Amino acid sequence: MTANTENDGSMAKGSGRIKALPKRALAKIAEVARTAKKLGQDDPRRVTHSLKVGLAITLVSLLYYFQPLFDGFGVAAMWAVLTVVVVFEFSVGATLGKGLNRMLATLLAGALGVGAHHLASLSGEKGEPILLGLFVFLLAATVTFIRFFPRMKARYDYGLMIFILTFCLVSVSGYRDDEVLEMAHKRLSTILIGSFASLFVCVFICPVWAGSDLHSLVAVNLEKIGSFLEEFGNEYFNGLEEGESKKDKSNLEGYKTVLNCKNTEESMANFARWEPGHSQFKFRHPWKQYLKIGTLSRKCAYRVDALNGYLNSEIKAPLKVRRKIEESCIKMSFECGQALKELAMSIKTMTSPTAVDLHMSNAKTSAKNLKSFLKTGLWEDTDLLEVIPAAAVASLLIDVVACTESIADSVNELASLAHFKSLEYRDQAVEQVQVIKQKQILAQPLASIDGTHHVITIEVASPSLRK
Amino acid sequence: MTANTENDGSMAKGSGRIKALPKRALAKIAEVARTAKKLGQDDPRRVTHSLKVGLAITLVSLLYYFQPLFDGFGVAAMWAVLTVVVVFEFSVGATLGKGLNRMLATLLAGALGVGAHHLASLSGEKGEPILLGLFVFLLAATVTFIRFFPRMKARYDYGLMIFILTFCLVSVSGYRDDEVLEMAHKRLSTILIGSFASLFVCVFICPVWAGSDLHSLVAVNLEKIGSFLEEFGNEYFNGLEEGESKKDKSNLEGYKTVLNCKNTEESMANFARWEPGHSQFKFRHPWKQYLKIGTLSRKCAYRVDALNGYLNSEIKAPLKVRRKIEESCIKMSFECGQALKELAMSIKTMTSPTAVDLHMSNAKTSAKNLKSFLKTGLWEDTDLLEVIPAAAVASLLIDVVACTESIADSVNELASLAHFKSLEYRDQAVEQVQVIKQKQILAQPLASIDGTHHVITIEVASPSLRK
Repeated sequence: MTANTENDGSMAKGSGRIKALPKRALAKIAEVARTAKKLGQDDPRRVTHSLKVGLAITLVSLLYYFQPLFDGFGVAAMWAVLTVVVVFEFSVGATLGKGLNRMLATLLAGALGVGAHHLASLSGEKGEPILLGLFVFLLAATVTFIRFFPRMKARYDYGLMIFILTFCLVSVSGYRDDEVLEMAHKRLSTILIGSFASLFVCVFICPVWAGSDLHSLVAVNLEKIGSFLEEFGNEYFNGLEEGESKKDKSNLEGYKTVLNCKNTEESMANFARWEPGHSQFKFRHPWKQYLKIGTLSRKCAYRVDALNGYLNSEIKAPLKVRRKIEESCIKMSFECGQALKELAMSIKTMTSPTAVDLHMSNAKTSAKNLKSFLKTGLWEDTDLLEVIPAAAVASLLIDVVACTESIADSVNELASLAHFKSLEYRDQAVEQVQVIKQKQILAQPLASIDGTHHVITIEVASPSLRK
Repeated sequence: MTANTENDGSMAKGSGRIKALPKRALAKIAEVARTAKKLGQDDPRRVTHSLKVGLAITLVSLLYYFQPLFDGFGVAAMWAVLTVVVVFEFSVGATLGKGLNRMLATLLAGALGVGAHHLASLSGEKGEPILLGLFVFLLAATVTFIRFFPRMKARYDYGLMIFILTFCLVSVSGYRDDEVLEMAHKRLSTILIGSFASLFVCVFICPVWAGSDLHSLVAVNLEKIGSFLEEFGNEYFNGLEEGESKKDKSNLEGYKTVLNCKNTEESMANFARWEPGHSQFKFRHPWKQYLKIGTLSRKCAYRVDALNGYLNSEIKAPLKVRRKIEESCIKMSFECGQALKELAMSIKTMTSPTAVDLHMSNAKTSAKNLKSFLKTGLWEDTDLLEVIPAAAVASLLIDVVACTESIADSVNELASLAHFKSLEYRDQAVEQVQVIKQKQILAQPLASIDGTHHVITIEVASPSLRK
């Protein structure tokens, strides 16, 4: 009986486990579904992109179905499918860059390969494989080394790889001369078909422009730092008294994504340089200037990160110390925040920044006031240890004012390089931005491992910014 | 005559330009040669890598030369060459990751493709292309969307791309069933040959381990911050008096590369996870812990960047103010620097950090001293405005002490996770590190656009660290 009961027990356990299995699997599936839904909601362009890739591949695989086309290309038709899969990227710039790289590299390497094949075949049956092997080795080693050059890596890495590939395929293949020519020709034409199909779908169906993304990323980053600074003064000087120390400050920490987006910005600028003119952006738009603004934003964000440390630190300067510098500090922080938000707005609407000068002069006046106030020596009765956090905050804020000014300068430079319109067009531009917002999500990329960019939705034009 | 003279003049100009052309071309070539030499000297492994790629491709292209092998594979032999070109990466981890991704994806997608082809062929001549098109569209769109999942993107991005590719090639190709099977089989076996050839050359000829690189990158980053902090105190408090304000401080700015190496570290950790055990590192070495240490290092580096701002700023606290806090600040900075260097040494030699506790307690004592010194109110006769930079520096240094402590904690965690040896083995380990240094350059990667890592040489074991 006992044995039987035990047996039953273990069976019950076993069946329990078996019953639990589909439950776990279901939970896992539900989790994946949630992630997928979130990915799609964060940026619906991801869903569109997936459908576009499916469409482009299906289009090109028609090459196989239509017998006449297939007869023309034979097995080489698979290169067209392969090209679409490999070349089709999220943004137009990335696709264009890869497509051009692939086409140009195939053309050049194909020609060189045919030449090498011809040259080697002249040296007789025994010499041919040796000479070909030597050519392949030298070319592969040299081009691989060239891929380490930072400039080549940034723009032509993919092309250099395809160059090695095509040269090897064409030169090594042990055919007769005319067959090699035909092979090179087929490979080139199928790659052209694949690249153009990808580009067609990529450009004409809901295009994603790396340039626009970079443009809004830089603006959104400025806005995030601005939001922090707008709030910081009040948060630091008044937060505690109102018993709000436990308040959720996560809305302030948006600036953290700014700290690590150097690589994203650089790869987007590289992609953007391949793109033709689109909407407000002309071909040869000064994309490099965005990198400058990005670098300055990060410098400012490092200071903001230090300020955030004081916000969360348990040790704060005592109330009476803080009260003394409160006004100037709040003003400095707020005006810098306003200036940064105005700069962000200026970039978004592509109109010259104007109110910035006012905010900056306000901030600088406050900095001056703070200094002269400190000079009056009202402090003598305070414990100096207690002054340190407040002094550090004040000092960081003075630093932030300098950073903001250099950001303003570089945005002004961008405005003149990219011929931003004057302020009269602002209202009109704001409307345009909002219309664009309805049609498409202005998105903000996250840093990712390989430099390609994912995007998440961001509120772009808040009414409070419309002045 | 005049016309003739003019003509002569313009001819002279023209020939001058023509003469200038080769000069310019020569200058350009010389510049490229210099860059190439520098790239090679910075990390000789780049040259080795290039030669290895050449070797691997030449080896695989032998498939074409040997008639019997070629007869077996036919045109499919080109997939072996293609695989080598595409899969061969700088580090073993990256090559292994790509190779495994490619092999597994080809196997799975090949099987699925054969199945889809069979299923579609059942539906008659008219239904077949429609059904196949539908399959291809659905699979391509779904898998493309899956590539957006951050986890999949980090480790399986390449595999997912190859999955789409192989599925399309196998399922779409309009052959009879047995031919499709043969095609899938050929494709898989050539890809296996290519991948194994790449792996063989990559692992057995001067291997570059992403894990070792990550290990030394994290250690070198700590060392760079440590070097800055060791010098900072003296530089800030004594630099100006000795008329050294114009001294080249670039040796102090090594820490700047630490600010932007998040992506590099993440991709290296991803590569490292593919690698089998090598030298001191077992398979399943706690690579993730390095990312933790890296994040904390960056946090510390942000503070250091702020300190550096005070070093270079024109406005410094006046001498008499600085003199008062000088001793404690120099001590704090120096001890933190020593602690960080000791931690770096501990990671490099994989021995438990011990002297760190001493340095940290020294630093904390100094921080305490500073605080109590400030409390004595010796300051009353100074202008408070002048105190601000000094106070900010002191406050940042107190922050740095906290950062250093959290770094020390996470290195201790690494030490217990990775079973670091006790200190007795230190001298032995230092010797080993130096032997390794002679054989191979422990290198430090730079952030790059696509997350793959370039490396520059770094002095690893300085004698002053051997205690």
